[in-house]
Amino acid sequence: SAANVLVPDTTAHLQRSSGVHASMGAGYHSESKAKEYKHVCKRACQRAVDRLNAGALAVDAVAAALVELEDSPFTNAGMGSNLNLSGEIECDASIMDGKTLHYGAVGAISGIKNPVLVANRLLNEAQKGKLSAGRIPPCFLVGEGAHDWAINHGIAPCPSEKMATKFSLSAYKRNKRKMEMAEKVESGFNHQAKKRRQSTENENGSGLLDTVGAIVVDREGNVASAVSSGGLAMKHPGRVGQAAHHGCGCWAENTRTQNPYSTAVSTSGSPFLASEDCVLGGVIVLRCSRCCDAQPSPDIQAILVEFLWSHTTESMCVGYMSAQDGKAKTHISRLPPEAVAGRSLAIEGGVCRLPNNT
Amino acid sequence: SAANVLVPDTTAHLQRSSGVHASMGAGYHSESKAKEYKHVCKRACQRAVDRLNAGALAVDAVAAALVELEDSPFTNAGMGSNLNLSGEIECDASIMDGKTLHYGAVGAISGIKNPVLVANRLLNEAQKGKLSAGRIPPCFLVGEGAHDWAINHGIAPCPSEKMATKFSLSAYKRNKRKMEMAEKVESGFNHQAKKRRQSTENENGSGLLDTVGAIVVDREGNVASAVSSGGLAMKHPGRVGQAAHHGCGCWAENTRTQNPYSTAVSTSGSPFLASEDCVLGGVIVLRCSRCCDAQPSPDIQAILVEFLWSHTTESMCVGYMSAQDGKAKTHISRLPPEAVAGRSLAIEGGVCRLPNNT
Repeated sequence: SAANVLVPDTTAHLQRSSGVHASMGAGYHSESKAKEYKHVCKRACQRAVDRLNAGALAVDAVAAALVELEDSPFTNAGMGSNLNLSGEIECDASIMDGKTLHYGAVGAISGIKNPVLVANRLLNEAQKGKLSAGRIPPCFLVGEGAHDWAINHGIAPCPSEKMATKFSLSAYKRNKRKMEMAEKVESGFNHQAKKRRQSTENENGSGLLDTVGAIVVDREGNVASAVSSGGLAMKHPGRVGQAAHHGCGCWAENTRTQNPYSTAVSTSGSPFLASEDCVLGGVIVLRCSRCCDAQPSPDIQAILVEFLWSHTTESMCVGYMSAQDGKAKTHISRLPPEAVAGRSLAIEGGVCRLPNNT
Repeated sequence: SAANVLVPDTTAHLQRSSGVHASMGAGYHSESKAKEYKHVCKRACQRAVDRLNAGALAVDAVAAALVELEDSPFTNAGMGSNLNLSGEIECDASIMDGKTLHYGAVGAISGIKNPVLVANRLLNEAQKGKLSAGRIPPCFLVGEGAHDWAINHGIAPCPSEKMATKFSLSAYKRNKRKMEMAEKVESGFNHQAKKRRQSTENENGSGLLDTVGAIVVDREGNVASAVSSGGLAMKHPGRVGQAAHHGCGCWAENTRTQNPYSTAVSTSGSPFLASEDCVLGGVIVLRCSRCCDAQPSPDIQAILVEFLWSHTTESMCVGYMSAQDGKAKTHISRLPPEAVAGRSLAIEGGVCRLPNNT
């Protein structure tokens, strides 16, 4: 398998303050889709940096980045998500705060424009402590219960028909036809179970893994991560994917006595592909530690930030920005021409230094 | 913290064939409840062993054990589960096959007598390969979607009112009153958020963690594990607990080239308690490896089976049985008298030898 390693010199851009990295759509991206993705990634970085500059902590900044990614009709998250078998949108999202290790997630939630805001609200409510009569607050809610909790906590409902796009509706019709045709062909055989095993070709195409995610480090050195996904096209209603799974979709953990690193990770793909020949997925990673080498100024205790992105899909769009940057940098990472998606791995990344304000 | 280690000599009982271990109700058990639990554990072991003796693999045997545990009105799983805030029953369950690493899970599912059978069916369907038009089959379904999938796959619905028991209904009414009283008291203060933090006492009592689980090794040396839970009493509708979480509720993994051990684990408790003072939970573990020492007969390649159970709760009921046993052994493991639940840990276990029939 091929590994494409690239270390861009972004030190200058991230030298002064906190940073944000957003990624989206580990999948195959045409040139026109790539352009849209770059724009959305840019806006997501900007939104997070605006919050950081206003004094927000990493977890709020990462939620803000996700809202922008979800609001884009071009991503498979929030608005424009894949439709399921019944033609409905059901979303997964999760968020984790590296400072408190608190976690919030929603699965198969319908009728909410920004699933990540429900996940973030669950995280915030859990941080307030126990409910009346000593009840432990929820951190993972699914389906109707998740929807009702969101509404009861002041999050506005969004009619399902407003969340579908021309693109997602026509993809649904196309997929439905393909399914019906495939089932007609298959029912012609008696050995249907055997036939099922053979139809390994995935016809859902570009809609498969266009999950979005972001990771942030704030000026106190706190890390946070979040992920959001509309899930597989034509999935069964009620299906929950890895974006909602604790420890699968995202992870964030500040430095501790026993651990010199702060780490934030956001992934796409599926942990349930152990038996698949081709494992398609993407990941963005942030690792921070105190600089041990000589400092430019002895007064500043700098933080060394390493970040990388990796994918086994054809391509992945990545954006990154520091709080001092005028605008975000974006990049479409692609497998080398000879590489095969699902069997090759691209890894790119960079290193930078942040002053520690704590 | 106190550790109570006990290694019973069960070698004789497990010497000839495959074994099953079932655990339930890591929580506080009165003498009367303990007696019921022992009976149910015994029946669960028997049911699994019957299947093993009929030639079933570990994963089917473990599902059979769970059905018995769920069917007991005394456990917080299936029949007799805790009611949620709306007075409904919503169950979580998952199952994992160590041979294939396939996994099935349901979360917040209503109106199904045996949630573990839906999880097992998801696992079985996933093993058949892709769906029409190359769609990846689901392995984790929640809420209504999970219910509908079960019905479409021939699993009979069960009216919710049949799943509630006199005990669960009266507990619900008691909890509801407590909540209302607590909220009246709390609303008397202006600093409600602060008050919430202080009410750390858990009033849900015995219903808290009575999850059930089982682990099995079959005569080919395959391991499997499963777990099922009705979740917290008075939980928010749609809340999914660790019993449905991949890698949290249960795990099973056969020996491989790089790994000399087969392992099966089933847990109760919550992975989301990082910030809690007292972490309450229980676990049963099975680890198998080839015997390296001198064998009773050189023709038999024996498997060494280590099993242990551990809990931080007041008590946990455990049953174990080999396919050759006339009946299961059961045991209520308790913290030592001076130990404090949530701060102390009891560990007990045993070692035995099985002939390897592969």
